[in-house]
Amino acid sequence: MQGTRLDTTRIRAARQVIDPIFLDTPLYSCEALAPRLGCKVSIKLETANPVRSFKGRGTELVASLLAANGSQAAVCASAGNLGQALAWSARDRGLDITVVASRSAPATKLDRIRALGAKLELVDGDFDTARERAVAIAQHNGIRLVEDSLDIETCEGAATLGLELVDRTPSFDTVLIPLGGGALATGVGPVLKALAPEVEVICVQPAGAPAMTLSWRQRRVVTTDSTNTIADGVAGRCPIPAVLDDLLLVADDALLVQEASIITGMRMLLDHAGLVVEPSAALGIAAILENRDRFASRHVVTIVCGSNVNVDAYHRWIGATPI
Amino acid sequence: MQGTRLDTTRIRAARQVIDPIFLDTPLYSCEALAPRLGCKVSIKLETANPVRSFKGRGTELVASLLAANGSQAAVCASAGNLGQALAWSARDRGLDITVVASRSAPATKLDRIRALGAKLELVDGDFDTARERAVAIAQHNGIRLVEDSLDIETCEGAATLGLELVDRTPSFDTVLIPLGGGALATGVGPVLKALAPEVEVICVQPAGAPAMTLSWRQRRVVTTDSTNTIADGVAGRCPIPAVLDDLLLVADDALLVQEASIITGMRMLLDHAGLVVEPSAALGIAAILENRDRFASRHVVTIVCGSNVNVDAYHRWIGATPI
Repeated sequence: MQGTRLDTTRIRAARQVIDPIFLDTPLYSCEALAPRLGCKVSIKLETANPVRSFKGRGTELVASLLAANGSQAAVCASAGNLGQALAWSARDRGLDITVVASRSAPATKLDRIRALGAKLELVDGDFDTARERAVAIAQHNGIRLVEDSLDIETCEGAATLGLELVDRTPSFDTVLIPLGGGALATGVGPVLKALAPEVEVICVQPAGAPAMTLSWRQRRVVTTDSTNTIADGVAGRCPIPAVLDDLLLVADDALLVQEASIITGMRMLLDHAGLVVEPSAALGIAAILENRDRFASRHVVTIVCGSNVNVDAYHRWIGATPI
Repeated sequence: MQGTRLDTTRIRAARQVIDPIFLDTPLYSCEALAPRLGCKVSIKLETANPVRSFKGRGTELVASLLAANGSQAAVCASAGNLGQALAWSARDRGLDITVVASRSAPATKLDRIRALGAKLELVDGDFDTARERAVAIAQHNGIRLVEDSLDIETCEGAATLGLELVDRTPSFDTVLIPLGGGALATGVGPVLKALAPEVEVICVQPAGAPAMTLSWRQRRVVTTDSTNTIADGVAGRCPIPAVLDDLLLVADDALLVQEASIITGMRMLLDHAGLVVEPSAALGIAAILENRDRFASRHVVTIVCGSNVNVDAYHRWIGATPI
C-alpha cells in the first residue's frame, strides 16, 4: 500500500504522550444488537472520558507539542468536540485557546468549551464558516491554527484507537468509521491497513453532509453548498485535499446514510446497548441498518465516537417509546 | 484493621483469571456534574462490557473455578445482573447454569439471561424468595449453589475494581458504593482500607430496601418484611451474617436515600454525563444530593455499577424534560 502521512512508530510513541484517561477504551461485543442487526457488533466506546469523545487523543498530542514549543496560544475551528478536547488538554498546560464554532452548534458542546476555560467565538454560519474565521484569527494574532484532520497529530491521536482495535480484538471483518473531516478515518485506517489488512475499512457519512464521501468516490475534492443533518459532528462542506489523499489510500468504501437510519441507530444503541450517543456516533449502526445483506453474519466493529448531545434534542429524536 | 475474608494477594491474582473485557474500566472526572453537586465527582464506569454491570468480574472467578473442579452445572439466585454475568462466564466453559429470579425483575435482565443460554426459573416473590428456591434446586439436583456476596469469589471479583481505584486515581476522599447484598462493598472496601486507608468508604442503599444498612448500624442482622424501591439490583431483605461481619470492618458509613433522589441522580447522569444507568447505579449521586454539606468540595468516586434497565421504565422515571 502506498504510504499515507501516518507512521506506525510515531503512533505507538503517541501513546506515551496522551493522558491514559483517553486510551484503552472499552471494546466489547453487544450481543443484544446482533439478532436485530443480523451481524456480530462490537462497540469501541469513546465516550467514557472527561470530554465524551475520541478527540482528546489528538488534542493531547497537539497541546503537548504546543507547550513543548513554548507556544502560549492557539485557535481552532470546531463543531464542538475538538474545541472541548483542545480546551481540556490545554488547560493544565497553560495555553490560551480560542475556539470558533457555529452559533448553531449544540449548546452542550459550547457550554463545555466555555466551562473548560477556552475563549469561545461564535459565527453565523456553519463549521466551514468557523474554519475561515479561525484562519483569520490565527493570522491576525500570530498564533497557531489547529486544523482538525489536516494537522497530523489529530490523525495520529485517532490512530491510537486503531492500534487498540488491532491489539485487542481477536478478529473482526469490518470497521465502520464515522466520517466528517476525516481525522478518525485517516487515523484509524492506516493502522488497520498496515497491521490487519484483511479488515474492511468503511467510512459512513450522513447523506445530508456527503462532501467527503462524494470526494472519495470521485477521487477529487467535491464541496457542497450546504449540509442538512442532525449529525453536527460530521457536517462539513469543504474536504481538505491532503486528508482526501490519505482517505483514498485506506478506505475500502464510503457509505451515505439517511437521517431516519441515524435516529434508529441512536434508539437501538439506547434500547439494546444502554448508550446515549450523539448522532455521529450512530452512523455505523445506521450503515448496518441500510446494508443488512452486506454485513450479514460478519463481525463488525463500530466506533461510538461521542456522546455530547443536547438532551432535549436527543429526547425529541428518539422519542420516549422503546422500539 | 481486623481482617475480612479477603486477601490482597488473591485479589491481584484474580486479575489474571478474569476476562480483560471486565477489567480496567473507565475512571474519569465528570466536570459537568461538579457545579451541580458541589464536589468533584469521578465516575467508575462498570457498564461498558458484554453484561453491562460489574458482576462479570466475580462470575469469571466463579465459573473458572467450577470448570477447573470439573463441575457441570450451577444454580444461582439473582436480581438479574449476577445471573446474566454468570450465564456469560459459563457459556464458553460448557457449564449449565440455572438462574432463579423474581418474576418482577426487569424484563431486559431476564431476556439477557435467557439469550445467554441459561435456564431461567421465575418465582412469585422477591429476590429472597428466589434465594430460597435456588437453595432447594441446588440440594435437589446436587449442584453448586452460587451465592452472591457470600461466595468469596463474588467479592474478590468486585475487589479488582478496588485495586483499579487505588492504582489509577491520583487521590480521592470518598468512594460511594451501592449497597445491596454487599458483594461490591465487601470487595472494594478491604482493598481501600488496606491500600488507601485515608479514603472514606461509604455505602448507599435505598431507604426502601434498608436491611443491610440497618444491620450495619445495629451491628447485627436486621431483616425487613418487604422492599419498596425502583433500585431492583439492591433490593434484598435478608443480609448474610458473614457479609455483614466484613461490612462492619470496612464501611465508614452507610447512607439511606430516597427514591426521588435516585431518580434525580439518574437524570443528572443522563443530562450531564451522558450515561444511561439502572437505579442502583445512581445511588452515589443520590447520596451526594441528600448530603451536600458533607461532600462539599471533596473528591468523590461513585461506582456506576450497571445499566441494565427497561427503557420504558427508564423513560417513565426520568421523564423527557431535561433538568
